[in-house]
Amino acid sequence: MIISIIGVGLLGGSFALGLREKYPHVKFVGVDNSAVNQKIALAKGIVDEILTLDEALQVSELNVLATPVDAITKLLPYMLDHLPDGRTIMDLGSTKELICKLADKHPKRGQFVAAHPMAGTENSGPGAAFRELLIDKNVIICDKEKSSPDSVGLVETFLRDVGMKIHYMKPVEHDLHLAYVSHLSHISSFALGMTVLDKERDERAIFDMASTGFSSTVRLAKSSPQMWAPIFDQNKKNVSKALGDYIELLKKFKEAIDGRDMDASLSYMARANDIGRVLAGIEKK
Amino acid sequence: MIISIIGVGLLGGSFALGLREKYPHVKFVGVDNSAVNQKIALAKGIVDEILTLDEALQVSELNVLATPVDAITKLLPYMLDHLPDGRTIMDLGSTKELICKLADKHPKRGQFVAAHPMAGTENSGPGAAFRELLIDKNVIICDKEKSSPDSVGLVETFLRDVGMKIHYMKPVEHDLHLAYVSHLSHISSFALGMTVLDKERDERAIFDMASTGFSSTVRLAKSSPQMWAPIFDQNKKNVSKALGDYIELLKKFKEAIDGRDMDASLSYMARANDIGRVLAGIEKK
Repeated sequence: MIISIIGVGLLGGSFALGLREKYPHVKFVGVDNSAVNQKIALAKGIVDEILTLDEALQVSELNVLATPVDAITKLLPYMLDHLPDGRTIMDLGSTKELICKLADKHPKRGQFVAAHPMAGTENSGPGAAFRELLIDKNVIICDKEKSSPDSVGLVETFLRDVGMKIHYMKPVEHDLHLAYVSHLSHISSFALGMTVLDKERDERAIFDMASTGFSSTVRLAKSSPQMWAPIFDQNKKNVSKALGDYIELLKKFKEAIDGRDMDASLSYMARANDIGRVLAGIEKK
Repeated sequence: MIISIIGVGLLGGSFALGLREKYPHVKFVGVDNSAVNQKIALAKGIVDEILTLDEALQVSELNVLATPVDAITKLLPYMLDHLPDGRTIMDLGSTKELICKLADKHPKRGQFVAAHPMAGTENSGPGAAFRELLIDKNVIICDKEKSSPDSVGLVETFLRDVGMKIHYMKPVEHDLHLAYVSHLSHISSFALGMTVLDKERDERAIFDMASTGFSSTVRLAKSSPQMWAPIFDQNKKNVSKALGDYIELLKKFKEAIDGRDMDASLSYMARANDIGRVLAGIEKK
């Protein structure tokens, strides 16, 4: 069996590395328009061979579409057009509504499975991929009933074998939740990074005065712009709403500080403290 | 020798635990207005005895003022009033301008050392204290030249012996930097926690969909409101400016997303990416 990874980055690369151990007889093929990524993917043993997209489509049982989401929406219709019968495409994009809508229009919708693994780091590219990334993480499959039983069965087997826990959701619901629990935290971190860098021209001061709390809050600001800009764009409606809510709360917090209204500050923070319960739940997973 | 910890929480408690190993003949005394904190501090071996503030002042070579900053400004003048000659008070507050101004008015200014260890976690209280918290962390001493050589010498010896690296700074400069590299990241995290909790009434969805990036960004939202409200209040001018800068950038980011201006989004994130260099520097410390 041949599995192709289209876009051999952190997520696609980690999926391949995790799967290789359990499937010694599967050949992994990489498709990537970056020559450097191709070399790293081969050198790291993520894939056995680099092919063009057309070549990969003709030989692969499963095509894993792991590019940024703007490339997914561009490639998916073309790939479905040229997909041989009985074969499967799975995407790993962080947005689902637009991608699923595109797939819905296609006569080969059944051969497509829309998935989103809830895993990542602030690093990107095949150099950042590692075998353990997906273990014990959640993955959402959207519109499962629109995929053929064979395609879903194949995808679920592989996702479980790399250690993931599968959940099911509607694309609209997925994108709404993700705006709050993932996309917003990336924007808050990007903006925090910019704010501090704009002010603190002297890096020495940041080195000496920042504590681990700062590093933790700002680390997502290292994330790939090329990956995130299309996510924010495709999930514009929900991200804009979440970001608007966030800005409103920050303004209220600022008013409380400016007006020396300690009771208001205390009550905002007490409300926020409740996140402790949620974090304990996430860590326990 | 006797050292008193006034406010036996995360920071004061960790300082005592770190120091005890190297100073087996020092007796540690705790002063705390919470009966539970007193019991935990004794049970955990952070201090050997609980005394009242007046009792502790009479017997201690060094008084470590490790309460929230509103209690520091209340207690410091009283403590200096009643401090025997030759003895020292050090505070560990996250704001320095107001505290140093108060001390400057006092005839016993020389017996006071203003310090701020750049260390902490999102947890608080003596239960959260641990011996290693301060190792390899930076500490800022403000207005060193206003403290007597004896008091500074004593404090620096102990700070080095718990493993800290000492830096010197003016209080005004300290408070300005801290607004950006610490206080702002706490507010951004508190507000993120609130935004997500307001929206996501169903915790299950957060558990299933949040990844490690979310946990990392929001973990400071667990921090103690009682500790942070007075910090934001005492550093109101700088925090308000930093928060205003942050809100402006978030608004620009939102405009870029709403207007589908991908070039603007990409350029904001590319600017933020530069924080990677800073984080590498912090981690290398």
